[in-house]
Amino acid sequence: MEINPIADYKGPVSGKFGLPRQAGLAPSVEGKIIFRPGYRQREALRGLDGFEYCWLIWGFSMSETKWSPTVRPPRLGGNERVGVFASRSPFRPNPLGLSCVRIASVGDGEILVLGADLADGTPIYDIKPYIPFTDAHEGAHAGFSDTREWRRLKVEFEPGCGISDCDRKTLEELLAEDPRPKYQYDPDRVYGLIYRGLNIRFRVEGDVLRVISAS
Amino acid sequence: MEINPIADYKGPVSGKFGLPRQAGLAPSVEGKIIFRPGYRQREALRGLDGFEYCWLIWGFSMSETKWSPTVRPPRLGGNERVGVFASRSPFRPNPLGLSCVRIASVGDGEILVLGADLADGTPIYDIKPYIPFTDAHEGAHAGFSDTREWRRLKVEFEPGCGISDCDRKTLEELLAEDPRPKYQYDPDRVYGLIYRGLNIRFRVEGDVLRVISAS
Repeated sequence: MEINPIADYKGPVSGKFGLPRQAGLAPSVEGKIIFRPGYRQREALRGLDGFEYCWLIWGFSMSETKWSPTVRPPRLGGNERVGVFASRSPFRPNPLGLSCVRIASVGDGEILVLGADLADGTPIYDIKPYIPFTDAHEGAHAGFSDTREWRRLKVEFEPGCGISDCDRKTLEELLAEDPRPKYQYDPDRVYGLIYRGLNIRFRVEGDVLRVISAS
Repeated sequence: MEINPIADYKGPVSGKFGLPRQAGLAPSVEGKIIFRPGYRQREALRGLDGFEYCWLIWGFSMSETKWSPTVRPPRLGGNERVGVFASRSPFRPNPLGLSCVRIASVGDGEILVLGADLADGTPIYDIKPYIPFTDAHEGAHAGFSDTREWRRLKVEFEPGCGISDCDRKTLEELLAEDPRPKYQYDPDRVYGLIYRGLNIRFRVEGDVLRVISAS
């Protein structure tokens, strides 16, 4: 089946590095769904503002297209393998992502959403309302994602790092999730995250992530 | 983007008529996800048995491909229009369905699932584990699907209708949801639902659905 993007996501994080690993992990991240011509019709969104959340079916546009029967989820430290269909990994036969995001407001051909785990420019193929009676299963067993505690970092901003107060909350949510690839433990290494066009530079020592500068 | 089915759903209901209107509404409905060659690898399902639910992204293979900016959800009695992106209607730009089903067991190239709202033979494009911390939002506002009570029917089986005890529970769940199109109120009309290859014939009078025969 041929599917075509109906919209694009406009968000603060460019590239994969620093993206939340699932929707909702960084609830303050604000982004816009901007419909493409042909789908940009106010009518098509009628009633959506009555819903608190919606589903996005989107394309892993930045991943390789090769899939693998097993993958190594970051949640397991990157060294245990699980089946691709037991994971939300991008390396799937059909590279479709699924995310539940909070609806902040519905505009004319645009939706303002919170908590997305999509990179800026991600193509969106479908949007559906979130319906708790069919979608919500609080407390359902969730295999390996049940069994391990997710290690969060303490985020500190160096004086004079140049980050505005209003960006700090969102950056704190993003960085506390530890964006480093598969447990690199070099405290001298400086990482860079592209956030709203700024290069946010930081180091991690133990459980503390320190933001050095933004330029 | 070109996407290809990885599996097919084998279930008791053939055709659209009588299908549950959402996943989970008929929790006893049992079906099998059968992987296609090339995706039929035990490895690809490793760890899935630790999850209670999974997501299916599937194709509305029996619907017209034409989409409409507004649709009339059965939940609103079929005469009020909402935007297609505020609905789970099949008449979408990309005819993708999304359903959360319960995992009964994981076999070799097969998954036994409960509560699916898919017709027999539906192509499946992706399977993902259900992860409550990102997917479950119990009590989220859900627009028009919050505001109306879903009218359920009382299902009675006529003596000698020829339906086994083990099929009755599932049929009761399916029929109680009132499969009739947009409120037809003719008590003399006989409807037929194809269930496990049987033609289940029934009538509806008021709030009572009476199963007459199975052949």
